[in-house]
Amino acid sequence: MQLGVCYYPEHWPREYWATDAARMADIGIARVRIGEFAWSRIEPEPGRYDWAWLDAAIETLAAAGLKIILGTPTATPPKWLVDQMPDMLAVDAHGNPRNFGSRRHYCFSHAEYRTQSARIVTALVQRYGAHPAITAWQTDNEYGCHDTVVSYSGAAAAAFRIWLCGKYGDIGALNRAWGTVFWSMEYRSFDEVDPPHQTVTEAHPSHTLDYRRFASDEVVSYNRAQVDIIRTHASSADIMHNFMGFFTEFDHHAVGADIDVAGWDSYPLGFLEQFFFTEAEKTEYARTGHPSIAAFHHDLYRSCTKDGRWWVAEQQPGPVNWARYNPAPAPGMVRLWTLEAMAHGAELVSYFRWRQAPFAQEQMHTGLLRPDSSEDIGASEARQVALDIKTIGDTHKTRQASVALLFDYESIWAIQIQPQGASYNALELVYRFYCALRRRGLDVDIVSRHHTLDGYQIAAIPCLSVLDDDTARRLKTFDGQIILGPRSGSKTPDFQIPDALAPGALQSLIPVKIVRAESLRPSLGQSGTLPSGAQFRAERWLEHAEFASDVDVIAQLESGMPAALRHERAVYLTVWPDAALLDYVMGDACALAGLPAENLPEGLVCRRLGNLRFAFNYGAAPIDLSDYLAGAEAFEYVLNNAHIAAADVAVWRE
Amino acid sequence: MQLGVCYYPEHWPREYWATDAARMADIGIARVRIGEFAWSRIEPEPGRYDWAWLDAAIETLAAAGLKIILGTPTATPPKWLVDQMPDMLAVDAHGNPRNFGSRRHYCFSHAEYRTQSARIVTALVQRYGAHPAITAWQTDNEYGCHDTVVSYSGAAAAAFRIWLCGKYGDIGALNRAWGTVFWSMEYRSFDEVDPPHQTVTEAHPSHTLDYRRFASDEVVSYNRAQVDIIRTHASSADIMHNFMGFFTEFDHHAVGADIDVAGWDSYPLGFLEQFFFTEAEKTEYARTGHPSIAAFHHDLYRSCTKDGRWWVAEQQPGPVNWARYNPAPAPGMVRLWTLEAMAHGAELVSYFRWRQAPFAQEQMHTGLLRPDSSEDIGASEARQVALDIKTIGDTHKTRQASVALLFDYESIWAIQIQPQGASYNALELVYRFYCALRRRGLDVDIVSRHHTLDGYQIAAIPCLSVLDDDTARRLKTFDGQIILGPRSGSKTPDFQIPDALAPGALQSLIPVKIVRAESLRPSLGQSGTLPSGAQFRAERWLEHAEFASDVDVIAQLESGMPAALRHERAVYLTVWPDAALLDYVMGDACALAGLPAENLPEGLVCRRLGNLRFAFNYGAAPIDLSDYLAGAEAFEYVLNNAHIAAADVAVWRE
Amino acid sequence: MQLGVCYYPEHWPREYWATDAARMADIGIARVRIGEFAWSRIEPEPGRYDWAWLDAAIETLAAAGLKIILGTPTATPPKWLVDQMPDMLAVDAHGNPRNFGSRRHYCFSHAEYRTQSARIVTALVQRYGAHPAITAWQTDNEYGCHDTVVSYSGAAAAAFRIWLCGKYGDIGALNRAWGTVFWSMEYRSFDEVDPPHQTVTEAHPSHTLDYRRFASDEVVSYNRAQVDIIRTHASSADIMHNFMGFFTEFDHHAVGADIDVAGWDSYPLGFLEQFFFTEAEKTEYARTGHPSIAAFHHDLYRSCTKDGRWWVAEQQPGPVNWARYNPAPAPGMVRLWTLEAMAHGAELVSYFRWRQAPFAQEQMHTGLLRPDSSEDIGASEARQVALDIKTIGDTHKTRQASVALLFDYESIWAIQIQPQGASYNALELVYRFYCALRRRGLDVDIVSRHHTLDGYQIAAIPCLSVLDDDTARRLKTFDGQIILGPRSGSKTPDFQIPDALAPGALQSLIPVKIVRAESLRPSLGQSGTLPSGAQFRAERWLEHAEFASDVDVIAQLESGMPAALRHERAVYLTVWPDAALLDYVMGDACALAGLPAENLPEGLVCRRLGNLRFAFNYGAAPIDLSDYLAGAEAFEYVLNNAHIAAADVAVWRE
Repeated sequence: MQLGVCYYPEHWPREYWATDAARMADIGIARVRIGEFAWSRIEPEPGRYDWAWLDAAIETLAAAGLKIILGTPTATPPKWLVDQMPDMLAVDAHGNPRNFGSRRHYCFSHAEYRTQSARIVTALVQRYGAHPAITAWQTDNEYGCHDTVVSYSGAAAAAFRIWLCGKYGDIGALNRAWGTVFWSMEYRSFDEVDPPHQTVTEAHPSHTLDYRRFASDEVVSYNRAQVDIIRTHASSADIMHNFMGFFTEFDHHAVGADIDVAGWDSYPLGFLEQFFFTEAEKTEYARTGHPSIAAFHHDLYRSCTKDGRWWVAEQQPGPVNWARYNPAPAPGMVRLWTLEAMAHGAELVSYFRWRQAPFAQEQMHTGLLRPDSSEDIGASEARQVALDIKTIGDTHKTRQASVALLFDYESIWAIQIQPQGASYNALELVYRFYCALRRRGLDVDIVSRHHTLDGYQIAAIPCLSVLDDDTARRLKTFDGQIILGPRSGSKTPDFQIPDALAPGALQSLIPVKIVRAESLRPSLGQSGTLPSGAQFRAERWLEHAEFASDVDVIAQLESGMPAALRHERAVYLTVWPDAALLDYVMGDACALAGLPAENLPEGLVCRRLGNLRFAFNYGAAPIDLSDYLAGAEAFEYVLNNAHIAAADVAVWRE
Repeated sequence: MQLGVCYYPEHWPREYWATDAARMADIGIARVRIGEFAWSRIEPEPGRYDWAWLDAAIETLAAAGLKIILGTPTATPPKWLVDQMPDMLAVDAHGNPRNFGSRRHYCFSHAEYRTQSARIVTALVQRYGAHPAITAWQTDNEYGCHDTVVSYSGAAAAAFRIWLCGKYGDIGALNRAWGTVFWSMEYRSFDEVDPPHQTVTEAHPSHTLDYRRFASDEVVSYNRAQVDIIRTHASSADIMHNFMGFFTEFDHHAVGADIDVAGWDSYPLGFLEQFFFTEAEKTEYARTGHPSIAAFHHDLYRSCTKDGRWWVAEQQPGPVNWARYNPAPAPGMVRLWTLEAMAHGAELVSYFRWRQAPFAQEQMHTGLLRPDSSEDIGASEARQVALDIKTIGDTHKTRQASVALLFDYESIWAIQIQPQGASYNALELVYRFYCALRRRGLDVDIVSRHHTLDGYQIAAIPCLSVLDDDTARRLKTFDGQIILGPRSGSKTPDFQIPDALAPGALQSLIPVKIVRAESLRPSLGQSGTLPSGAQFRAERWLEHAEFASDVDVIAQLESGMPAALRHERAVYLTVWPDAALLDYVMGDACALAGLPAENLPEGLVCRRLGNLRFAFNYGAAPIDLSDYLAGAEAFEYVLNNAHIAAADVAVWRE
Repeated sequence: MQLGVCYYPEHWPREYWATDAARMADIGIARVRIGEFAWSRIEPEPGRYDWAWLDAAIETLAAAGLKIILGTPTATPPKWLVDQMPDMLAVDAHGNPRNFGSRRHYCFSHAEYRTQSARIVTALVQRYGAHPAITAWQTDNEYGCHDTVVSYSGAAAAAFRIWLCGKYGDIGALNRAWGTVFWSMEYRSFDEVDPPHQTVTEAHPSHTLDYRRFASDEVVSYNRAQVDIIRTHASSADIMHNFMGFFTEFDHHAVGADIDVAGWDSYPLGFLEQFFFTEAEKTEYARTGHPSIAAFHHDLYRSCTKDGRWWVAEQQPGPVNWARYNPAPAPGMVRLWTLEAMAHGAELVSYFRWRQAPFAQEQMHTGLLRPDSSEDIGASEARQVALDIKTIGDTHKTRQASVALLFDYESIWAIQIQPQGASYNALELVYRFYCALRRRGLDVDIVSRHHTLDGYQIAAIPCLSVLDDDTARRLKTFDGQIILGPRSGSKTPDFQIPDALAPGALQSLIPVKIVRAESLRPSLGQSGTLPSGAQFRAERWLEHAEFASDVDVIAQLESGMPAALRHERAVYLTVWPDAALLDYVMGDACALAGLPAENLPEGLVCRRLGNLRFAFNYGAAPIDLSDYLAGAEAFEYVLNNAHIAAADVAVWRE
């Protein structure tokens, strides 16, 4: 694993560059990521390219021994381009254009913008594709950031009609698939179909799901166009895109299929603040991030590319500027996050950014250096972690985990479109499953529904609401333990209830039929008792099931209704599970799979890399590993020992 | 009373129809409601009608002995019609069109849409008006659903100007009536008047009230146009419209005046979740609905038509899909709701819907059958209640109640336009009065301000903020007890403060003058003591009154200010009353009116029908009627006995 | 000091006028404010003026001995003018026009509206400029009310480009000042720059700050145009504008520089309800207003004009109509507020309004008279206070205070644009500083950053986030105590972080460097201990400082981080301070400045006028002054004595 940093030479006087490069190398940084957002400097006037500054920047950085990741600048088309074709702007759900003045203001479906985008990428890669220091390219930046996947522009409407025609062939097929007979929503031709927005009440869910698929596909094809250009002119370089955290607007697996390396931008504190965590969690982990935020994304994006290659393209180095509240990481966390990425198999952790910019939107976003060029805390921790990496050694390889956690973008879209209960957050459920698996000490690969399950002992499937036949078949032939969340198989790919009712074709795995579903306000949760005698609580969601006599109730509510059912290797949860129920189910699956199940507290997370095991203390108090892992005093430690301070790490050989 | 069901033959394969019809009859269903929303099937292309399927569906249902309620399909104009005239779309308050893709997307004021609406209704009624099985017609569906009464389209603006001209004749009259001299809002002609939206701060209240009246009148005239066509071609059939719950956007009494039967769509759980109930109430009654939700609307809509005929056009059969949380009814509630409708005089309870649709927006809305055609819980309860109805007998007639509760749409609009305090919800106040009357065991007729008061012992008037002279005169001559809520008579019909101050002409009933009104944040409520020694609490609203020496203070706040004043037969509340104060006032009125006043707990509601009395247990625990009604053990029970389980019913002869 | 009243003769029958005038005089009112909002009566048709009614109104009022303040009617352009040029309407941030139908619907940048505005003002002042009874003119009404300063119209966009060109001269200077290289936001000409709205994510802060400055300047130049016309034709009259409370959308100091008298509209209860106060404060002070609301604005607006002349142009007389909740003032508060204005040096307190209007938007806003012309509570308190003023005498002059509290609009805009933490409310911080100074018994002048500091012992600077060189220089030469809030000097005027980091040039005052800033969710506050042993709490904001050895930590957090630092005469707060920390810092400054520091409870506020001192009891219980001021029993009282009832006042000679 290497360290990298994000750098914007165009932001700084040219005389800074050589010093900056030398200081990077001194800290232990090997790679530098540049170029994204620089369109207005590369092409200051329509058709007039200015390469001189970028030539010089690249040479300066390369001269210091740094390898370069060069980004295409298409996330920030300049004003002159917008003025040439104002209808390239994305349009919001109310029909208003999303104006120039920040970033990501283009509509993915605008054909002429795609042409312009290809032109600037071609120019860039033709010039630098053969440069020996440029070992990787980044396409665009953070697709989807600021809710920019779905646009309601005229360009999007036109492209959607073509997409529908390609999918359904004739309009009758669409009408049948969607069920447009309902409310007289039938169409006579694809030309009649509009984007689903500003409708009087909710739009048709099949219509909306197809629009979400279309919008995701637009991202994929837009990215692929850049990939194709880069491959042509820089065939030996890696191609990477930097994804974000907890983003579900497009299918990251589909974009990942076209690139070599999945990058992602890791901001644990900002993600904690902005997403579904409880107020108590936002307080307790305000300075560390919730213990599984980073790991969850590491394990998700590792599976996004065919070779499992992934980077942290941007790593939070201190307070950021964009969350509701922006506290500082606890001392040690920048180092901890870096080593955790290593444990999950990252090839690179690239800090965002080298020097805090004193101007523009992100001026309150810290860097490794302060705006006055002094080293900030992040730099000192990066320097330390560079040494740690040497101590640990960089020859360790990620092994396949014992558990596959299925992550399905379409299913999440379906729940977003039709939550049925205000508190049903599909992404959160996936995350809570992940946390429970990790409390059992399990390593996890987060995979798409198309991923092979060969070699896994457990398949955890928290949210597979949209079930296709192929996935059902493949799950049927999987010989490990299967844990199905509520709403599994509750929709066909056309967004209809399956003929046999939920869980549809999964009934071949477990003969259960969901005959009624209830969403519950928080005050309406029900308690139940586990076989262990422990209490659990079901909230948010409650399904009524009919099931065969060879299905066992493995967790029951006070009311007598089941909360979890098992048949052979499959468990089906009929409720939104709390941590106690998840812990029980995961432990039970481990027992059946012959896997050892640990009992780790929330703040202690572990991960294996090669024959090493890492332990990370996200809690506020020191941890004695012996309290949780038998014999920990006698482990063969590579880093630290069994007594792990807050925000510290231990590594040992297994 | 009969049972019915809502059915969409166009949603199902033709081979299902006969079986469905036979199963309906088997359950005990006599009537089937069809046709609404089917425009795109009736007229798949402009001008080309397809009657074959509907002919067949009608014949199939009729052949099973079912009587048919046929709906006009105008709530869902098809896409080709919208594309012909996109300006038929309603426009929201920001000026954006409300697009095709769900339902109710038309603007009531669009003249050409009215023409098209008349055309399709004419075609339908010409074809089926004489069919012997079609005994009733429904106009459109749920006027006002999804906030669709008020539109800001160009068509609405033009129609509003004509409406104003018709009301005021010359612009000077409008200027005087509104008081446009304020803030230089004077108009020189009706052409200068726009709809009141997107104003910098609140629009002129008189302007807005007239716009609300106009919008309501547009619904009335739109409906009347359909009624006139149906009467012409189907003179012997009943004409019904299905109203919704807690909807106040148009004057339901005015629409009711044109139809034979007031239908309404009863979703007690959804209404509980979506409206003004407290969090505690939403929890306690999550699976039953608040005990007076259904009854309130039964009593409201019964008075909407001249003959007092009313139906439950749609009855919740299980979980719905449209509330924030959608739990299942407690076992027994579908039966209970049905019998309660009977107790209040319904001719028909029609379950929505026959079979849960596996597609489109309402796929999570249950029916009597599951999507797989198995009977759901609702079907079994419907089957049971069909037997209960036979046991009870169907010869009982609704009698005039002892109490008239006045419900005035204009007054509610006035409070919505000028709440003056964020927590003043006029509809809630009307509802709380109703609950208090029912806790006293009283039957209630909810009537418009134009309804006769002859024969009532008590007139409860929670919200008559807009007072016209005629109503004031009629109240003056009423010889029963009158209970006036706060803000009574506080506005003239022009939305001005009356010359004599509030309660205006009601001062002839009770010589009180409201000289100051305060709205209070929740933390600022005041306690007081009732003559009984019980405590009450005034919140939200506090009026300062001057009054004559022959006015008695019958409830006083700790501060010494009065909370309730009485003069002769009239009581005036100067505060937003809590349940304790309302109980006292209602009990007091009963005593003066010579009516027995009971003390029923919130969860037990009763109602008389002919010489029967029904009792319904909405609580979670069994109820012993003897605890509340003397001699209950010895009543002559027709159904059940004095021990009423949760979600159960008892009926006895009085 | 005199009493006045706001009167709208056009609202009332002509036969009321003389009686009204006589009753005003009888109560003790000397001045009457008329004319604002009357455009449609002055010019009922384009170009046709109707002076007769206004002539008569003026003569009638003058005949009763009343002096007149005549307002220009430009806040309410009539409909015929809007219809002539619909693009004069302001446009909201979504791009939708803000329609006619209330007030303030014009865009300040619309050139033709400026022409029309000048025309009507000229006509008015030409007719009445020489009238001996008209001793003052008011320009427009409440600039900024209802968020009307910032508009996104085409007119505003065009004017902004000209403004930018004027400021920067060439586009390269703008690009450098803003740092548009970030995200390729570089412009090639001023024509490319749009208003910063509807951007995908936050707009560039420098761009937005300049837009805020531009919008503020538009108000200034719009007002100045009216001032110039009035001066030309009414050279001896005072010119006043009536500002509002807690409004920060434009630079009031800049408008103030052009007028003679700063008026402001004092609604303590409405401001309490609508602004940043805690729920506990909103409850405790619901009927009095928070004890410093009125005083804060008195002290702010007194410094707005060169001669320190100011009025209460509108004084709340009872419940208002526009807050979420609108309770009544406690008995005595109208008198208290009036005397408090006197204590702070007001020349005039003018009640809004004479008679409550029974029509239009403000019909629930009370006046001195009820709509039925009876005297309301406000009238009786006005009558009383007229006598009190005589008792006190009107020869007392405001003296310079000991403390200057710096109030900087630009700095507040900067925090609003980039709060960095959701709870950082710059205006609140200024207000909390003010309250703390007053708890120490100090009189305060609230001054702009351009105001001289000569003669002050303490300069309190809660929010000077944007620091220019001149201000830094002037603070350096100030020889009193300086208390700097967090974020001081954190931005250059171009909205960049200063090269030396915050507090920038203030490092010459105190050698501190802020190297990191954190915003904290409410649950993340930290406690600390003061030298006195008392506890304090830091919330919302936490800065990490590097500082020289000659800087003292005068308040420290439990974590060991400093909360307050002192060097020589300057204190710098690195946290959002609570009341305890502020009390300590203010007391400390007093000690160093040689000023006596009192310990007044929140509900008791005091103020000196000439050789008098006033004390006001905002609390709910009586206060014995001796508990807080030594020897109070023996003071030489002019009004009342040491025992002050709730809502009462005492005045004594010092």
